Amino acid sequence: MKPILLDTRLRLDRIRAARQVIDPIYLDTPQYECDALGRRLGCAVTVKLETANPVRSFKGRGTELVASQLTEQGRTAVVCASAGNLGQALAWSGRRRGLEVTVVAPRSAPAAKLDRIRALGAELELVAGDFEAARERAVSLARERDVRLVEDSLDIETCEGAATIGLELASRAAPVDAVLIALGGGAMATGVGFVVKSLLPGVEVICVQPAGAPAMTRSWHERRVVTTESADTIADGVAGRYPIAAVLDDLLEVADDAVLVQEESIVAGMRLLLEHAGLVVEPSAALGVAAVLEDRDRFAGRHVATVVCGSNVDMDAYRRWVRV
Amino acid sequence: MKPILLDTRLRLDRIRAARQVIDPIYLDTPQYECDALGRRLGCAVTVKLETANPVRSFKGRGTELVASQLTEQGRTAVVCASAGNLGQALAWSGRRRGLEVTVVAPRSAPAAKLDRIRALGAELELVAGDFEAARERAVSLARERDVRLVEDSLDIETCEGAATIGLELASRAAPVDAVLIALGGGAMATGVGFVVKSLLPGVEVICVQPAGAPAMTRSWHERRVVTTESADTIADGVAGRYPIAAVLDDLLEVADDAVLVQEESIVAGMRLLLEHAGLVVEPSAALGVAAVLEDRDRFAGRHVATVVCGSNVDMDAYRRWVRV
Repeated sequence: MKPILLDTRLRLDRIRAARQVIDPIYLDTPQYECDALGRRLGCAVTVKLETANPVRSFKGRGTELVASQLTEQGRTAVVCASAGNLGQALAWSGRRRGLEVTVVAPRSAPAAKLDRIRALGAELELVAGDFEAARERAVSLARERDVRLVEDSLDIETCEGAATIGLELASRAAPVDAVLIALGGGAMATGVGFVVKSLLPGVEVICVQPAGAPAMTRSWHERRVVTTESADTIADGVAGRYPIAAVLDDLLEVADDAVLVQEESIVAGMRLLLEHAGLVVEPSAALGVAAVLEDRDRFAGRHVATVVCGSNVDMDAYRRWVRV
Repeated sequence: MKPILLDTRLRLDRIRAARQVIDPIYLDTPQYECDALGRRLGCAVTVKLETANPVRSFKGRGTELVASQLTEQGRTAVVCASAGNLGQALAWSGRRRGLEVTVVAPRSAPAAKLDRIRALGAELELVAGDFEAARERAVSLARERDVRLVEDSLDIETCEGAATIGLELASRAAPVDAVLIALGGGAMATGVGFVVKSLLPGVEVICVQPAGAPAMTRSWHERRVVTTESADTIADGVAGRYPIAAVLDDLLEVADDAVLVQEESIVAGMRLLLEHAGLVVEPSAALGVAAVLEDRDRFAGRHVATVVCGSNVDMDAYRRWVRV
């Protein structure tokens, strides 16, 4: 079947080429149906597991792409703002190539993520406030130092990296009915959504965001950028307040739906993933399961795939939430 | 480099051929260095993760091989004795091919494993006593019904399936210094050990068994089959009492060492894998980490690989052990 054409910043040939420069350690991740979880949710569930790698999230796919380009260009340093996962992944990809990596993170980011960024040899600068404050500081830093600023979701490489997950999902012999993707800045949702919609137009692409950080979902429904005053969710990985217009445009093209879920459902999703799939995940990785929990009728008897996108979580917080 | 020749029941060409009939869902599993765990253990640690598949253990590699042969031979049923993981895997491989699968298990096996065997559509027969009692019953059942009995570790396919893990470990650009392998009946230890020793003779092959179920380790040290009166360990997957002579012969050829670890070390290993690698594992999957904990000097500054072989654990027991 010929891929259908979507009007986005993404292109299948570039995404396919990305696989050539991403360290194989981040590619071809486990993708399997989890019977026990499916029985609990009333639908077949395929888990796409992005946690079994050195940085415990899917972000390595994008940072590998960025870092390999910087090396080719002879650049020696790079800066990003991150709630933790992008920073870790960039630190890993940069260390491997001898790049000086600086990560600006909110002081409130999970300690586990911050520790691992430092351990990977990156310079870590902590700022007061939330992710948006970290982003502003990263912009100034990059300008001062005249180095590349990696902007998650805006920079096409971060979307293309995530999109390689879509290639793997689409390569299954038996496609699923719907793909559930965590929605934050939009790199993963637009990337994976684009590939799935291009290659398997019949598969529903459903983005899931916490009701406590609903900016991109509201924007998608209103078809214009909607910002929020605050973001209040345990899912730190997807807690942005300022959607990027170009990313929203792409999301409008590739997503069939964008839904919001309650914090209790995110926690219930984390618990189900632990109890019935043996997976410790960070809150954003449980958004897909949370969406099924909140709308069981919609998914009853269908086959969904959910991208378990990260497992960087402070164990103390995890214990408190999941009450293990 | 030419493979070195070892006098065992295993052959590299057969193991390579096995990859062709094993469902890819069990192959090319995640294999990555875990910095955080390594820092805690004082050595570099590569995790070979065998839990991210539909049966949450490496046993699918062997049962795929067995089941595909049975199908080719026109057989319609199969029996095995299992503490849980082999039974689940055989149930999965059999269901896919329309084989009637009967699993005989000790009543004391983890409920999580027994539930999943049933859920996969296998007939489950529970017996009083330990694994050896289950094995005896499975032998009679197979004889009565005239169907193939799959005997873990004795049947070469179970070793060859496990051995495909060794091919993946050996395909790394930078080989490790030592491979730590859980030792029970010996399928995994002889299989993985054979491939590692054949292709990378400089890599140390170290088998690890609980001190509470030491039969095969004692046999290896005494170079003759030593049985034990009882087996007392939380690591149900490796709790045999009657080593098989042919398997011991292979193990003598491929293992550089066999060590015993205390229950407290197994629990500490499970805890470290949870806290620093985000992995929920069953006790037998923590044996490698336990071995490092008990002999830090031996591994200090070296690079070890450990096969995280299963995650089928009752969550209640897990919580009690790990005190999460």
